[in-house]
Amino acid sequence: MKIYVQKYGGTSVGTPQRIKNVAERIIKKSGNGVGMVVVVSAMGDTTDKLLELAYEITPNPPDREIDMLLATGEQISISLLAMAIGALGHPVISLTGGQVGIITDDVHKKARILRVNSKRILEELNKGKIVIVAGFQGITENNEITTLGRGGSDTTAVALAAALNADLCEIYTDVDGVYTADPRIVPEAMKLDIISYDEMLEMASLGAKVLHPRSVELAKQYNVNLEVKSSFNENKGTIIKGETGMEGILRVSGITHDKNIAKVAILGVPDKPGIAYKVFSDLADNNINVDMIIQSIRHEKVNDISFTVGKDELDKTVSIMRKTVEEIGAKGIEYDKNVAKVSVVGAGINKSEVAKAMFQALADEEINIQMISTSEIKISCLIDLQMTERAVKAIHNKFILNGIEIRHQDAI
Amino acid sequence: MKIYVQKYGGTSVGTPQRIKNVAERIIKKSGNGVGMVVVVSAMGDTTDKLLELAYEITPNPPDREIDMLLATGEQISISLLAMAIGALGHPVISLTGGQVGIITDDVHKKARILRVNSKRILEELNKGKIVIVAGFQGITENNEITTLGRGGSDTTAVALAAALNADLCEIYTDVDGVYTADPRIVPEAMKLDIISYDEMLEMASLGAKVLHPRSVELAKQYNVNLEVKSSFNENKGTIIKGETGMEGILRVSGITHDKNIAKVAILGVPDKPGIAYKVFSDLADNNINVDMIIQSIRHEKVNDISFTVGKDELDKTVSIMRKTVEEIGAKGIEYDKNVAKVSVVGAGINKSEVAKAMFQALADEEINIQMISTSEIKISCLIDLQMTERAVKAIHNKFILNGIEIRHQDAI
Repeated sequence: MKIYVQKYGGTSVGTPQRIKNVAERIIKKSGNGVGMVVVVSAMGDTTDKLLELAYEITPNPPDREIDMLLATGEQISISLLAMAIGALGHPVISLTGGQVGIITDDVHKKARILRVNSKRILEELNKGKIVIVAGFQGITENNEITTLGRGGSDTTAVALAAALNADLCEIYTDVDGVYTADPRIVPEAMKLDIISYDEMLEMASLGAKVLHPRSVELAKQYNVNLEVKSSFNENKGTIIKGETGMEGILRVSGITHDKNIAKVAILGVPDKPGIAYKVFSDLADNNINVDMIIQSIRHEKVNDISFTVGKDELDKTVSIMRKTVEEIGAKGIEYDKNVAKVSVVGAGINKSEVAKAMFQALADEEINIQMISTSEIKISCLIDLQMTERAVKAIHNKFILNGIEIRHQDAI
Repeated sequence: MKIYVQKYGGTSVGTPQRIKNVAERIIKKSGNGVGMVVVVSAMGDTTDKLLELAYEITPNPPDREIDMLLATGEQISISLLAMAIGALGHPVISLTGGQVGIITDDVHKKARILRVNSKRILEELNKGKIVIVAGFQGITENNEITTLGRGGSDTTAVALAAALNADLCEIYTDVDGVYTADPRIVPEAMKLDIISYDEMLEMASLGAKVLHPRSVELAKQYNVNLEVKSSFNENKGTIIKGETGMEGILRVSGITHDKNIAKVAILGVPDKPGIAYKVFSDLADNNINVDMIIQSIRHEKVNDISFTVGKDELDKTVSIMRKTVEEIGAKGIEYDKNVAKVSVVGAGINKSEVAKAMFQALADEEINIQMISTSEIKISCLIDLQMTERAVKAIHNKFILNGIEIRHQDAI
């Protein structure tokens, strides 16, 4: 039996009518010996409404009870979708995360999947049933309900696809696929037909809207064939898979941007061994993710250390760093919320060539570069927040429209 | 450790503010070595709203998926109540029907509780936690979510009280207790301090508003001390327990009425053995509950058989009986929705005396009696629907106010 895993996001099942439409799509794909496993998110804004209720009760609801509360959102949508499919005459069954056997650790609100017991799903598939699974949730060894946190439903879908050794894992959403840039900023942006796991991971800040990096990591780990497509039309989507072309060929997949970022600078840091370690271990111990890092020499024996964090973690970061500054004898701390990160992502990027072109595009627009970071497949620049759109357009123009061959035109 | 089980209905937890109030009540009762187990229903009209969603999808949602859907209602209220109690500083944990180990058969939408695994509850109580349990729901041996149907949360509370050998089971609702008649019809109606299980069962049509007969049956079977009281004030409620007084003393507990009733008459039934059996086995085979039955002789060898059924089962009953009428060679069928049943309920009733007084009260009001049925502790009369209020007032006046000693004034 071929097995297809599909995932439908909250917008796709946002109303009873949309649920009925999704039911028809699912039935169309089933049959011909295909076993269908469908993961769904909570309807529309259900999760937000449940959280509102919780915060009316207390400003600090315990994580365990939040999971108990939020897990109902997906339980509602799976039962409704199962009713819709049943009403069209196809055998179907809905299963909660616990029933399906998605076993997680006990870190509530951001549980990690430990393993998937595929026994129950396979039993139901063998009875000819379409299996509807609640995304975003699991159960611990002790029968406690957990949720997987951000991107949870995508992660559920990929984990099931991996456990069932599925032939395809389709992520249905409200956009057609992964684009070379955010189409709201760059109307000329083009949909990618195909992209590698690593490129997709780097496209995170663009791709987060369509696919959470965590699910991409899992897909890479288990080599799951992913496809992102729209649940509102029949257009071809974007396929995410392993390495897709020959090495050494320059392929720019897309231009991404991230406005949820802030810059922090520790000023006048004594140039002694162990100081950088102290700064970043203080941050790591408090679960703060640091992105770009620059250490600049101001004058002999005194450095500045700058880094970026998520905007929502800035307050926490600053309060931790004030203590660190004292302990290491630095001069002070500065921070700036008025920044954004723009990136060029692509496999096999020839860095100097790409970097040169990127910096030139920004210079042409008179955009100042505050920090730079690079990886094997991306180059990122920190710029003024107000310049974001102009920067993305300029870089997209340089690479995608006028310059370098783009990914979806490559032969595979 | 003393164990108290409390149950709060949907109105009592209808808003975040009410949930906070309930949390305070619960904490007040806890402590001093008392283990608190609290059963809650879904908030306000949650269940109705979920059903509306289902019927927007399909007019005939499968029972299994309805259970999957409805079980979320109680899961929401237990998590919110646990948050509210936690916010007041008391250790607490919420548990679904499945987590708590309420094992049922697999008859969805009206599952029966097979047993309760009290292990998890006792563990949590021993950790000093208040345990909040989702009412109305259970789980089968195969890990399927079930709901218990009407009166489900009351049944959950009584079943837990029985399994935990609790010292008391308090059912909190939006009225003060069980009254001698519906206070909306008889403003002089008095609250009963105490009533026996059997009397309470007969008071069902009155008592359904405060306590479902099914939970009373279970309480009787396991000798659970039940108390019905209001969650909105501190008034004493009504205690329901085993036999409460000496035999032979006339005690009228209350006057009840039931408007959800219809009369069906099979006309011209041949007077042959096995005919009544045929009529009522046809009804039983179709799960139709028959209440009052009268067989009257019209003339030699031809009878009329009349009975009452629930108003909502009238259509089904008539369509079944049309077939039966043909098969047994009866003349025809008549039915009437315009009827109601009024009853006098009391333990140790001296029937002829009570019946005489009841019939007199109705005669004084010129109310015609269409059918009569009696049991050890009640006498019921079928009357014209429009006469219900007048009949209840007249009978209540005769028995409770002017006549016979009432229950809550008895010595126990």
